[in-house]
Amino acid sequence: LLWIRQGRLPPPPDAVVWPGSEEEVQAVIRLCRARRIAVIPFGAGSGVCGGTVAVKGGIALDMKRLEAVGTVDPQRRCVDVQAGVLGEVLERSLNAQGWTLGHFPSSIYMSTLGGWLAARSAGQLSSRYGKIEDMVLSVRAVSGAGELLVTPERPFRGPDLAQLLVGSEGTLCAFTGARLRVHPAPEARALRGYRFNRVSEGVEAIRVLMRAGLRPAVVRLYDPFDTALVARSRPHPSPTPPSMRGTWKSDTVPFLLRQISRHALSRPILLNRAAGALRRCLLVTMFEGEGARTRKEDEQARILCTQRGAVDLGEEPGLHWLKERYSVSYKMSKLVDSGALADTMEVAATWDKVMDVYERVRAAAASIAFVLCHFSHAYPEGCSLYFSFALSDVSEQAQERRYDALWRTALSAARSAGATVSHHHGVGLLKSAALREELGEGVVLLDRLKRALDPDGIMNPSKLWAVP
Amino acid sequence: LLWIRQGRLPPPPDAVVWPGSEEEVQAVIRLCRARRIAVIPFGAGSGVCGGTVAVKGGIALDMKRLEAVGTVDPQRRCVDVQAGVLGEVLERSLNAQGWTLGHFPSSIYMSTLGGWLAARSAGQLSSRYGKIEDMVLSVRAVSGAGELLVTPERPFRGPDLAQLLVGSEGTLCAFTGARLRVHPAPEARALRGYRFNRVSEGVEAIRVLMRAGLRPAVVRLYDPFDTALVARSRPHPSPTPPSMRGTWKSDTVPFLLRQISRHALSRPILLNRAAGALRRCLLVTMFEGEGARTRKEDEQARILCTQRGAVDLGEEPGLHWLKERYSVSYKMSKLVDSGALADTMEVAATWDKVMDVYERVRAAAASIAFVLCHFSHAYPEGCSLYFSFALSDVSEQAQERRYDALWRTALSAARSAGATVSHHHGVGLLKSAALREELGEGVVLLDRLKRALDPDGIMNPSKLWAVP
Repeated sequence: LLWIRQGRLPPPPDAVVWPGSEEEVQAVIRLCRARRIAVIPFGAGSGVCGGTVAVKGGIALDMKRLEAVGTVDPQRRCVDVQAGVLGEVLERSLNAQGWTLGHFPSSIYMSTLGGWLAARSAGQLSSRYGKIEDMVLSVRAVSGAGELLVTPERPFRGPDLAQLLVGSEGTLCAFTGARLRVHPAPEARALRGYRFNRVSEGVEAIRVLMRAGLRPAVVRLYDPFDTALVARSRPHPSPTPPSMRGTWKSDTVPFLLRQISRHALSRPILLNRAAGALRRCLLVTMFEGEGARTRKEDEQARILCTQRGAVDLGEEPGLHWLKERYSVSYKMSKLVDSGALADTMEVAATWDKVMDVYERVRAAAASIAFVLCHFSHAYPEGCSLYFSFALSDVSEQAQERRYDALWRTALSAARSAGATVSHHHGVGLLKSAALREELGEGVVLLDRLKRALDPDGIMNPSKLWAVP
Repeated sequence: LLWIRQGRLPPPPDAVVWPGSEEEVQAVIRLCRARRIAVIPFGAGSGVCGGTVAVKGGIALDMKRLEAVGTVDPQRRCVDVQAGVLGEVLERSLNAQGWTLGHFPSSIYMSTLGGWLAARSAGQLSSRYGKIEDMVLSVRAVSGAGELLVTPERPFRGPDLAQLLVGSEGTLCAFTGARLRVHPAPEARALRGYRFNRVSEGVEAIRVLMRAGLRPAVVRLYDPFDTALVARSRPHPSPTPPSMRGTWKSDTVPFLLRQISRHALSRPILLNRAAGALRRCLLVTMFEGEGARTRKEDEQARILCTQRGAVDLGEEPGLHWLKERYSVSYKMSKLVDSGALADTMEVAATWDKVMDVYERVRAAAASIAFVLCHFSHAYPEGCSLYFSFALSDVSEQAQERRYDALWRTALSAARSAGATVSHHHGVGLLKSAALREELGEGVVLLDRLKRALDPDGIMNPSKLWAVP
């Protein structure tokens, strides 16, 4: 976005190719292999880590013509889908048949199945339905050697080849399709918001909830300032729900929000300090599925949360979240249009490290950018931390330098507190050096796999673990 | 067992080596690589598919000295364990710390973590706790190239290297340890037996139960004759529980059981026909975990089963199953001592194929062996079918021929009905040709991975997919 504002372009591919069949994907890759041309598999380009930047030129293999969605097999509860279909088109097509994939990334209008598979995508309901890798029964892909790979379904025996390919971000193969697990449309849904007096109490509540064996579709905690933004986001002229108004009326949030000018963002330390004085934060939970169990799990979660000092805000904050769940990502470009910069950084950590990652990233980035965070995609072992940054500076050049410094500082702080570099945005170019560091000697094994599947090194060069 | 009875031995290794550290494992494998000597990783030798037979001689790498069990990290709920520890020792050590792995294969007294990882082992409570691959946060292994591989924990990004190594049955690496997910000892347990009037109704009940999102620790259906054997198994002189007596009193089972002599087994078609006249079969369910939810799930399962015509037999059949759960496997050798032969064959299929696999295997094997079956390890998509065979013949040679014919016929029938060759016993030697057939062109990819991880082809030759 910064470059576009400056009229610059990331390195473009030499050509864009739209294959219409698996055979055409194979033909393109074989040709590229014979001529040593780089191949960059391309879905809808919503990635935020530079995973499809053509650093060595080559061919962008745009998969959008491979968009067939099969008929759901109701007995087996699965469906065959081609890799180029857009998420929202896929979900609507399944809904029309009475089913859901349960995968709702905020990019759903502009990301494809192939991209999800490449980057191990997580939807907003991942705590119940899993990440895309948990929804996959088998995958179809063309390797860098030009072979069609069809992994065995539910591999109870032998190496799990689907899980070897999923997450490879175009460096080993181009996905052409997958067999996906589907679910009947949920019978019931229970939404609820809670107010906690400290981030740490909210994080502890999520941990306890997951450890109790509950399976919320959504369990999402906003830190105090992110909470304020969420509560205020209302593109529709409906009034803020009364319960939320009640929550924040004594806070200084509206004042603070008015202060987020470009000028304020260039001196974020003050903003961060002010935000640090806020305490109250919002937890949103959603349970869905069979009616009776949904109500029971919601009730059990309510007991666990209120035992930990939470105030039950009823369903309105949940309904509000549900209504606005795709709109947040679109606001970032508005901020950029205004001349400032915004970005997000998601990492993941085990419960013993979550608060430390949160505090250290905030501290490290405090003088560079204004920092927000929410905690989501929870597991029995830990959760994802999703940081949002806003920054500004006197010139475009200074802003770019600040942006680069932010990434270096924030990611390094997260890593040194024990976080893994990415949970669901992928690694791409942006985090490849950090992943290489995190993997240590494991890089040797990846290099070997690369040579096994992409012997001439044509697939998406320089990505993921900075593939040589 | 047949060979041992005949005084024959499977091909022995040239040497047995007991490494005491990862470094020693590396040193052995490097030496073997330099001299092109085969390496066969060895746990406790309980495998039933010939996975550790030294077909090309070489070194048996016995891992039992690597038996350290770490301290459970209660905050992260995980533990580091070395590969050579026996299952029961591991579980007892975790229990002493207040935790459980939740992994209870019937081989638990004579199988190791390394063997579980190699073969993708499933315990009897897998429907709740998962198979061993679901319990693994990361693995440590030495590749055929002599490198120590430590896979990243919870790989949210990149290829999943742990899942590439798990299931490789010694053909890519030797496992040295793993970080495993643990669970608190269950607060409550609910056991129950049901009587169904047909196998198909019982299978349908399991499907409905899994589809309703219930998470039974055990859900296990015995076909009519297996039911009769389960009901009668009582090495302790306690009387058969009254509810079970009531269930079978009008059946011809006791009569049939008395007839299973070697002579009868040599003409199994009659036995199979008689067993085919039996209808009633036993489903055992067990829920465990937090008290209130355990009771609720048990109650919901009871409603779903009785709606489908089941008779609720109360908890006694469940208690009986629990008490005898490890004893079945030991009975096989008694039958073998008597001069007959017994074996088991486990496969897995999706729900649409389960009954067809059951019927076709029974029909195909009917004239060769007496056939029993139970259905267990259920998933939303399908379950495992576990066949037991008993056979006899006039001479040892004829018995061996019959045994080979049984395997060819039964496995081919299962495969042609759409089953996958193995769910949790592994593939080894016995099923490698069938796996090769099942994988089709996928073999090419496995061959490449083999070359990447074991460049000189020393690791457990001729196993899994008949590695060249």
